Amino acid sequence: MSALTQSRAWRALASHARALREVHLNDLFAGDDSRAESFSAEAAGLFLDYSKQRLTRETRDLLLGLAEQQEMEGWIARLFAGEPINHTEQRAAYHMALRAPREAVMAVAGHDVMPEVHAVLDRMTTFADALRSGRWKGAKRRAITDVVNIGIGGSDLGPRMVADALQDVADGPRTHFVSNVDGAQIHGILSSLDPSTTLFIVVSKTFTTQETMTNAASARRWLQDAGIEGAAQSPHLVAITAAPQKSGAAGYPAEHTFTFWDWVGGRYSLWSALGLPLAIAIGSKAFREFLAGGQAMDAHFRSAPLDKNLPVILAMSGVWNRNFLLCPTQLLSTYPSRLVRFAPFVQQMDMESNGKRIRKDGQPCNTDTGPIIWGGLGIDGQHAYFQLLHQGTHRVPVEFVGVLNEDTPLPLAAEHHRVVNLNLRAQAQALAVGRDEASTLQALMAEGMSAEQAEVFVSQRSFRGDVPSSTIWLDALTPHSLGALIALYEHKVFTQAAIWGINAYDQWGVELGKTMAKQMETPRGASHLPPAGGNA
Amino acid sequence: MSALTQSRAWRALASHARALREVHLNDLFAGDDSRAESFSAEAAGLFLDYSKQRLTRETRDLLLGLAEQQEMEGWIARLFAGEPINHTEQRAAYHMALRAPREAVMAVAGHDVMPEVHAVLDRMTTFADALRSGRWKGAKRRAITDVVNIGIGGSDLGPRMVADALQDVADGPRTHFVSNVDGAQIHGILSSLDPSTTLFIVVSKTFTTQETMTNAASARRWLQDAGIEGAAQSPHLVAITAAPQKSGAAGYPAEHTFTFWDWVGGRYSLWSALGLPLAIAIGSKAFREFLAGGQAMDAHFRSAPLDKNLPVILAMSGVWNRNFLLCPTQLLSTYPSRLVRFAPFVQQMDMESNGKRIRKDGQPCNTDTGPIIWGGLGIDGQHAYFQLLHQGTHRVPVEFVGVLNEDTPLPLAAEHHRVVNLNLRAQAQALAVGRDEASTLQALMAEGMSAEQAEVFVSQRSFRGDVPSSTIWLDALTPHSLGALIALYEHKVFTQAAIWGINAYDQWGVELGKTMAKQMETPRGASHLPPAGGNA
Repeated sequence: MSALTQSRAWRALASHARALREVHLNDLFAGDDSRAESFSAEAAGLFLDYSKQRLTRETRDLLLGLAEQQEMEGWIARLFAGEPINHTEQRAAYHMALRAPREAVMAVAGHDVMPEVHAVLDRMTTFADALRSGRWKGAKRRAITDVVNIGIGGSDLGPRMVADALQDVADGPRTHFVSNVDGAQIHGILSSLDPSTTLFIVVSKTFTTQETMTNAASARRWLQDAGIEGAAQSPHLVAITAAPQKSGAAGYPAEHTFTFWDWVGGRYSLWSALGLPLAIAIGSKAFREFLAGGQAMDAHFRSAPLDKNLPVILAMSGVWNRNFLLCPTQLLSTYPSRLVRFAPFVQQMDMESNGKRIRKDGQPCNTDTGPIIWGGLGIDGQHAYFQLLHQGTHRVPVEFVGVLNEDTPLPLAAEHHRVVNLNLRAQAQALAVGRDEASTLQALMAEGMSAEQAEVFVSQRSFRGDVPSSTIWLDALTPHSLGALIALYEHKVFTQAAIWGINAYDQWGVELGKTMAKQMETPRGASHLPPAGGNA
Repeated sequence: MSALTQSRAWRALASHARALREVHLNDLFAGDDSRAESFSAEAAGLFLDYSKQRLTRETRDLLLGLAEQQEMEGWIARLFAGEPINHTEQRAAYHMALRAPREAVMAVAGHDVMPEVHAVLDRMTTFADALRSGRWKGAKRRAITDVVNIGIGGSDLGPRMVADALQDVADGPRTHFVSNVDGAQIHGILSSLDPSTTLFIVVSKTFTTQETMTNAASARRWLQDAGIEGAAQSPHLVAITAAPQKSGAAGYPAEHTFTFWDWVGGRYSLWSALGLPLAIAIGSKAFREFLAGGQAMDAHFRSAPLDKNLPVILAMSGVWNRNFLLCPTQLLSTYPSRLVRFAPFVQQMDMESNGKRIRKDGQPCNTDTGPIIWGGLGIDGQHAYFQLLHQGTHRVPVEFVGVLNEDTPLPLAAEHHRVVNLNLRAQAQALAVGRDEASTLQALMAEGMSAEQAEVFVSQRSFRGDVPSSTIWLDALTPHSLGALIALYEHKVFTQAAIWGINAYDQWGVELGKTMAKQMETPRGASHLPPAGGNA
């Protein structure tokens, strides 16, 4: 692999970027009436408007040229063929199989995985239905009212994000999530629950994760202190793991242990048995619709031409912002409040996947790779950090996520919904357009300032604009569209990794902290380290 | 004001930074046994360890030289003297008065504000106590069990963050917060509440904020649909505003309207009547301890020499990272799970304050200003974006926040607490120290790899380290220490603004979105704007 920056496509983009440097987004709109139409695409219930990116048709051609040069279509084929593209761990990255229909043929190293995938899925939905119907009883013969998921990272944030997003279709037992280990979180949750009607789902790929095992120990102690001991705990415990022998040894019964496979990365695992809390909350029908939404995006990603391909477009406009417009961060701003954890979820998926600086061939990248993804709910952000987007010294590209049709059972629902989307559109507009000094002077005098006063404040109250953004519109926030949205971001991340030549599916960077923690636990291990600091 | 970058202190720092560029944090520790001790300071129950910043004693001297050149002590004096340092709005920034003791003398433009501050505080705590005791009755003569705060931005995030942080001392009515306007949030909260026992606190400085007014309308409609109409709504409604004539006109009774002043910025307002939901949740005694914690940090900031001054040290190490080590972002990573909203709170305060590029004198800054602040709970981050910190192409300085003494009523509390702090210390260590290729080779072979295999993966599994961090340790998470922690960050932000020559207390950047939303509401207004995009 030679240096990416020396390649033909990269150099063409670099030179094009220099030419575009002084062109304002307003200029791009002024010269092009069909811009909004030309820079949009749709698939699987999602509409992507990328007309407010700082790019032209030529930019798009050059970006797709880079994707072709990096053999994007070949990489997509290898991904779906189950090849071991996670090469440092010699594994496939095959979460797409988890959402594929029963009749699909999907194989890892020649082994058809669909029978086992659907066997686990069937067991899991049967279990969820038993819980939802009240047929499943706890030790004291009472039905389960509350489910507590204990996991961290990929074993927590994905299911938790979806549980928030689909709260309006949740009609099963309540779901709770514990990831932190400081005692306050699990105590806060358990103190409002009844042990005889609570089920714990303990999720750990290796079943050794220190934080999760500590919380699980406190959960079992809580059952025990309520008189639910030994084998009587069995109907209150579920394990989800790729190491069922470990969970079995710890006393989690095999009948309620659900497995997944080494080709499922933690941050891509919410489609697997890790979705159990969701299936319990929303029911197996809605859970299968969620899987179908992901699958619809898979089908689109595999077959759509690159210039209509949502994940590819999203990825390549990100590469443009990161590598050619030199923006180190990217804001993800969701406007429906139920998507409160979507930005943290994508942050985890993207930064854990593409926060790498060594290429697949072991050589250092000579380009920047994954950006810092940050953000949250847009309505809150408008009253907070958007100030810096408008008037700070950074340029921060934005991805907005909105919902076109929203149906809340409130008398004033239509007005609520109107205000939300008005705000989303106005922010995208304001960031792009800005307000120059002449318009600002006019506006200040219209407020009643004298020309003299207005002159004093005009620079503080002007906006350079020219902040690029894309908007993803969901027809409605449903299990299906949410599944498609998540898969869109998964494939965006994969596409960028292919461009940069990195492996999106390992995460060696999270290991050193764990290793050091172990060393610090033994006084000998700590002795050669620099002082830890702090007064304790 | 001449160009900052041409000043003597700045140029000395720039030249020093070049000399330090290739020096690794390990080198700084290797040459200095007393480093942990020398680079630490404490005040008001907080201990700051900044030994893992990439700086030397000389760096510190030069940074304090810059603070002196920028007349830091004079700025502190002007802040506390109530001068109109928010010059674009001709106002003081005088939130310190809100937490000052009754006998303090604090004046804005010669007018002693302490009598009115304590008059409102007394009314507010009396009201909170009436609610907590059950003496206050709703329309159906029942006591209030739930309080819903409706506000956004500064009228939401501060009180909400503190309510989370102090949940273990909350023993009053439950508090809920609504900021988003999409209907789902308020619907989700109201659907579990009883109108006859619910009180709404509607918070808006101007009492015109569109999101808040829309949510307040739905709240009142919900009361009405439960048969609580007209004057009967009175005991269910509280207004907090600087525009009491507006809230009065909207039907909020004067007896339960609490005011604040134009010298209280939204993001600095949780010390004012906006703290009412906190006073209700934790009681007036704990609320006054919280104020006292802020006041203790004020006293420290005013009087401590710069080299022992926590806000100044935190600010200047931030300036070093931002302007001389050229790090555009900063991670804030809190380890106690109750501080779940502390990073978003600081993000709002810092980025809305210092996301500016025009100096006080109207000229453009010729340096970078406020960084992008991002983060959240460290235990979750370790399993997510810490990957990028360790192995991505960015350098991200980190501020860790931990708690030395934690007391959770769990049988295994000590083990939970041990694991949390072990992880915090191990991460700070791992980020600083890294693991070079030779050590990595050894580690891989110790795992059982052949030398040949280890060679293949050594670069993927090495860590450059050298990631700077500071750690703030709280003795314990109490109302007092939390108050001090918040004031620490307020004064950090002020100090950086003084260095950069910007006004931390206006927020003109949040205005354009509102203006454009108004324009888009009228078809005429929208016509001259570029197409909004989207398919609706």
